[in-house]
Amino acid sequence: MSAERSVTIKDVAAHAAVSVATVSAVMNENKYVSPELAQRVRASIAALGYKRNNFARGLKTQVSHSIGLVIPDIMNPFYTNIARGVEDVTHTHNYSLIIGNTDEDPEKEKKYLHLLDSKQADGLIIAVTDHSFEYLQELPLQNLALVGIDRSLIELGIDTVLVNNTVGTRTAIEHLIGLGHRRIGLVTGARGITPTEERLVGYTEALEKHGIAVDPALIATARARVDGGERGAHQLLTLEDRPTALFLMDGTMVIGAMRAIAQLGLRCPEEIALICFDDFAWAPVMRPHLTVVDQPTYEIGKQAAHLLFERLQHQERAPREVRLQTRFIVRESCGSHLRSPDALSRFHA
Amino acid sequence: MSAERSVTIKDVAAHAAVSVATVSAVMNENKYVSPELAQRVRASIAALGYKRNNFARGLKTQVSHSIGLVIPDIMNPFYTNIARGVEDVTHTHNYSLIIGNTDEDPEKEKKYLHLLDSKQADGLIIAVTDHSFEYLQELPLQNLALVGIDRSLIELGIDTVLVNNTVGTRTAIEHLIGLGHRRIGLVTGARGITPTEERLVGYTEALEKHGIAVDPALIATARARVDGGERGAHQLLTLEDRPTALFLMDGTMVIGAMRAIAQLGLRCPEEIALICFDDFAWAPVMRPHLTVVDQPTYEIGKQAAHLLFERLQHQERAPREVRLQTRFIVRESCGSHLRSPDALSRFHA
Repeated sequence: MSAERSVTIKDVAAHAAVSVATVSAVMNENKYVSPELAQRVRASIAALGYKRNNFARGLKTQVSHSIGLVIPDIMNPFYTNIARGVEDVTHTHNYSLIIGNTDEDPEKEKKYLHLLDSKQADGLIIAVTDHSFEYLQELPLQNLALVGIDRSLIELGIDTVLVNNTVGTRTAIEHLIGLGHRRIGLVTGARGITPTEERLVGYTEALEKHGIAVDPALIATARARVDGGERGAHQLLTLEDRPTALFLMDGTMVIGAMRAIAQLGLRCPEEIALICFDDFAWAPVMRPHLTVVDQPTYEIGKQAAHLLFERLQHQERAPREVRLQTRFIVRESCGSHLRSPDALSRFHA
Repeated sequence: MSAERSVTIKDVAAHAAVSVATVSAVMNENKYVSPELAQRVRASIAALGYKRNNFARGLKTQVSHSIGLVIPDIMNPFYTNIARGVEDVTHTHNYSLIIGNTDEDPEKEKKYLHLLDSKQADGLIIAVTDHSFEYLQELPLQNLALVGIDRSLIELGIDTVLVNNTVGTRTAIEHLIGLGHRRIGLVTGARGITPTEERLVGYTEALEKHGIAVDPALIATARARVDGGERGAHQLLTLEDRPTALFLMDGTMVIGAMRAIAQLGLRCPEEIALICFDDFAWAPVMRPHLTVVDQPTYEIGKQAAHLLFERLQHQERAPREVRLQTRFIVRESCGSHLRSPDALSRFHA
């Protein structure tokens, strides 16, 4: 079969007795062709077994029909769900999705960007590594449509999808204050990236609104992974005047925090209340069932992909920042189910 | 910059005062070029900022430097970790990884295979959907190197990576028998695919070895997702003569099983013991801490990618089936930590 001469678009045109332009218009669906004519062309394509050569097509139109997704780690459920959302949209467009994990290493990120650029991916959805704005501007990405996720790139004129980090955090912290907590520990991920900085604002706002001074000793910075969560929680829980509640900025960190709590022999929620960002399939069956700030992860992926395909169609559209809403889900890990409704209503009155 | 004429391979050759063939040999590292000459060519490439056009290259060599990974669902942690393993290897080869989710829908699977074939991906790692062997043989995939994961394709002459399902299951079931269980419920995924069938063999072997008859009423078939696990567990736990232990074939199903157990007001492990295939980050912090048959998911991905790149180099190598070992991790969900060592040693004696 490979020895046969390939069927070309000219062969199809001859077979259907139309012009090459008409065959192209039918295949790309980018110009009006009468249903009868389109049907004839499709029949000829089928009869001859014509298969468009993507390399040849790419050479001419510089469209690869691939997009890239560059994220810290697909194994973090936050990004797993985003990837699935992106892929479902990509699939409906008959595009391929190329995935790269940076491990938050700017060098790896650069390598992926160059790889995708050299393969002429049409677009890229990216959660940039820390402090990488500058080099992003330096990269020769003129032909690559970009959408930022989780970290805002709107100042660079790049479409961005993220959540209302500040409100989401403020709501959670106010819930803890409402339950009587005054010393609330915070374990953050890397400083300088949007989610960390915005959640710090939400934390501070909630405390200040209720006249509680921010104690820097109660804020730990750690790697947004299980081990980071464990270290951060351990650091705060071994303070002489330890917090009575912990807020973790990431759904993987909370696993580490639960380890630290168990290791120190503390009981959750009786001795230490716990809230984290990110809901996941396991949270509702854990004991205690975790109270969380849920992010619409799958939807972040979908929206990012929609913005990207929109950008590919309308290169001149003004950049847009989409903020999706978080959802505060109260379960058991703050012990609110153990309190009398009276105590709560007294506070909120 | 985009208005400038692109630098071509001829420009590089002229700049370095060598032939185009020499530049090509240096770039593709496929012919001997003296170190001095190679150095001169590389300097010219750098000086001119020459960037190889992948479309043009693909047209000539039919190598896309992309591989595909087609799996049921990246959101199942089993496949998430495999994807990460595949991607880490792909990355070291400077290849791109294209990911597709089939949701175990053979039509979606076919669409991905055609998409990858038309984009001329060099290779494909695939967990085939049920009963799809036949159409896989019919597909025109002559130019696509294939590796099967989780489901054996060795009979089709296709390299395969999977785990020792039978031994893994037998060990877990014997652990339950050792703890005194005689009525052991099994919730399986789709019938007809390798892991289901092999694990059924392991289940049967363990029971028969200990003179326990297989009761078909204790085997439920369900979707390998949270909801399937819940339905399957509910079906078995509401039997008049209900099992005292459950074995779930998947790490997402166990979440559903835990829901069903809670819903029916049963206590685990006191009233119902629980084991599942797949370990995950959350298993050790769940209450009870889950006893699991751990699969080396990341390693499955790595090995599959290694086999694929090996195949791309040596098309004629004999097909190989790689079986990785599972690891039985005893935690708390079977209650073995509640039994006296005496009871166990009496049984094993």
